[in-house]
Amino acid sequence: MAQLLDGKHLADLRATKLKQKVTHLKSEGIQPLFCVINIGNDPSSKIYLKTKKRRAKEIGIKQKLFQLSSSVTQKELLSLINCLNEEEKVNGIMIQLPVPGQIDLNEALAAIDPEKDVDCLTPANVGRLWRGDHFVEPATAHGILTLLDYYHIELKGKNVVIIGRSSIVGKPLAAMMLERDATVSILHLKTKKLSEYTKRADVLVAAAGQPNLVTADMVKKGAVIIDVGINRFNGKIVGDVDYAHVTNVASYITPVPGGVGPLTVESLMEQVVQLTRRKHGK
Amino acid sequence: MAQLLDGKHLADLRATKLKQKVTHLKSEGIQPLFCVINIGNDPSSKIYLKTKKRRAKEIGIKQKLFQLSSSVTQKELLSLINCLNEEEKVNGIMIQLPVPGQIDLNEALAAIDPEKDVDCLTPANVGRLWRGDHFVEPATAHGILTLLDYYHIELKGKNVVIIGRSSIVGKPLAAMMLERDATVSILHLKTKKLSEYTKRADVLVAAAGQPNLVTADMVKKGAVIIDVGINRFNGKIVGDVDYAHVTNVASYITPVPGGVGPLTVESLMEQVVQLTRRKHGK
Repeated sequence: MAQLLDGKHLADLRATKLKQKVTHLKSEGIQPLFCVINIGNDPSSKIYLKTKKRRAKEIGIKQKLFQLSSSVTQKELLSLINCLNEEEKVNGIMIQLPVPGQIDLNEALAAIDPEKDVDCLTPANVGRLWRGDHFVEPATAHGILTLLDYYHIELKGKNVVIIGRSSIVGKPLAAMMLERDATVSILHLKTKKLSEYTKRADVLVAAAGQPNLVTADMVKKGAVIIDVGINRFNGKIVGDVDYAHVTNVASYITPVPGGVGPLTVESLMEQVVQLTRRKHGK
Repeated sequence: MAQLLDGKHLADLRATKLKQKVTHLKSEGIQPLFCVINIGNDPSSKIYLKTKKRRAKEIGIKQKLFQLSSSVTQKELLSLINCLNEEEKVNGIMIQLPVPGQIDLNEALAAIDPEKDVDCLTPANVGRLWRGDHFVEPATAHGILTLLDYYHIELKGKNVVIIGRSSIVGKPLAAMMLERDATVSILHLKTKKLSEYTKRADVLVAAAGQPNLVTADMVKKGAVIIDVGINRFNGKIVGDVDYAHVTNVASYITPVPGGVGPLTVESLMEQVVQLTRRKHGK
């Protein structure tokens, strides 16, 4: 059985430290304020919003939800973003995904002030990340690296295989893993024979959003398995990895739930606090 | 023997078309102006500068060289960049690499107006590239894709292996290959056993700047070989690939010189023209 990479435990540890930082900021009259824009009524989004709200409250971050109707126009969304950009008190802005079809997401993200872009999705911050000049770090990638560091899992020279090329997980994680001197392969739905790559991975990251995509026969003995998937399957939450069997092959593995998920939320809060501190020259 | 991917031929073809575009712009009173900043006296830079100057002249682009002394300060460089940003007539700005140690390259690049950033090295344009919202394309990556397209070499579902993780070649090329639905692996100096990856590559891109790095035993039969290296070795210019032997294994191969090099220069000119046209709403 592989050793569990306990994201929940680490997230709680880090939350305690973060809370102290926030208490200190508050004692200086600084209240971190995090604004989330949600459009429509996606049921998964509702769960994520609730989790973020709870975590923010625990840590002492003020979180404000801007709930927009599913028929909101691009112009209305941009106008809200501009307001939040200009509002002195706002430290972080994020758009909860997914957004409805009439919204041009790239344009909306590009409209966010990079100094308030907690998700690292504005062009300027994505570019800084790829150039090694990090301004903020995308929450999931930051969470995964934090977890690997905590368990002293070295990345230098390792063969890292990432399944999924999304802008919120796969791509930024590739940038950050490369920076740690890993050799990085990015796989996706158009990749022929995933297993040809995964079987040779020292560290395998599954971020495709597909239940049981990674089975035991696709994993090298002793590999480190990071499961980013959060899928509803047969009435419960499962990852992209067939945990029950893969745990017999891997050396380390993240559970779902309780692995990457809690660290993503915690990392997001860390970015809010970091942007707040930077704004105040700390 | 592999089929030659004749970059020189394609660059000349494209230059003829580009010249027509420039002639048309000039007939409307628009003169593309491309400014290159060179610091110090790097001998390789001198050759590249000369090549660019010649190609620009052929096409009808006005090129201005700003030669700075090797002891120039960051402040002086930034002040020049600001001048060029503000000057209406300037359509493209690039900093010739390498720069001396006292220069903070990231800061200097970030100072370039993204609308004049022909090299796609400003954070905003790097970010746009990774988000699939290209404003300009980095010359070498653009040249390579142009060459593959010209020879009808499909990337979808292919195993692409890139040796080299530079900001000017490896990383942007990875972004653009991923967008074409290739599976992309990025290798570098810290990669253990390059051949484990290269032997399985359908398309192998060598951009490490190391003569004879890729030998025939590292190449899969029928692979497409793109050699980005330009190295001075035993008194002549060679790539990163042992051409003489690899040509017996590969299906297609770029020569050095006459492969990627001429297309890089041509692609740079295309970006200058594109930025000029866009500025004038064309």
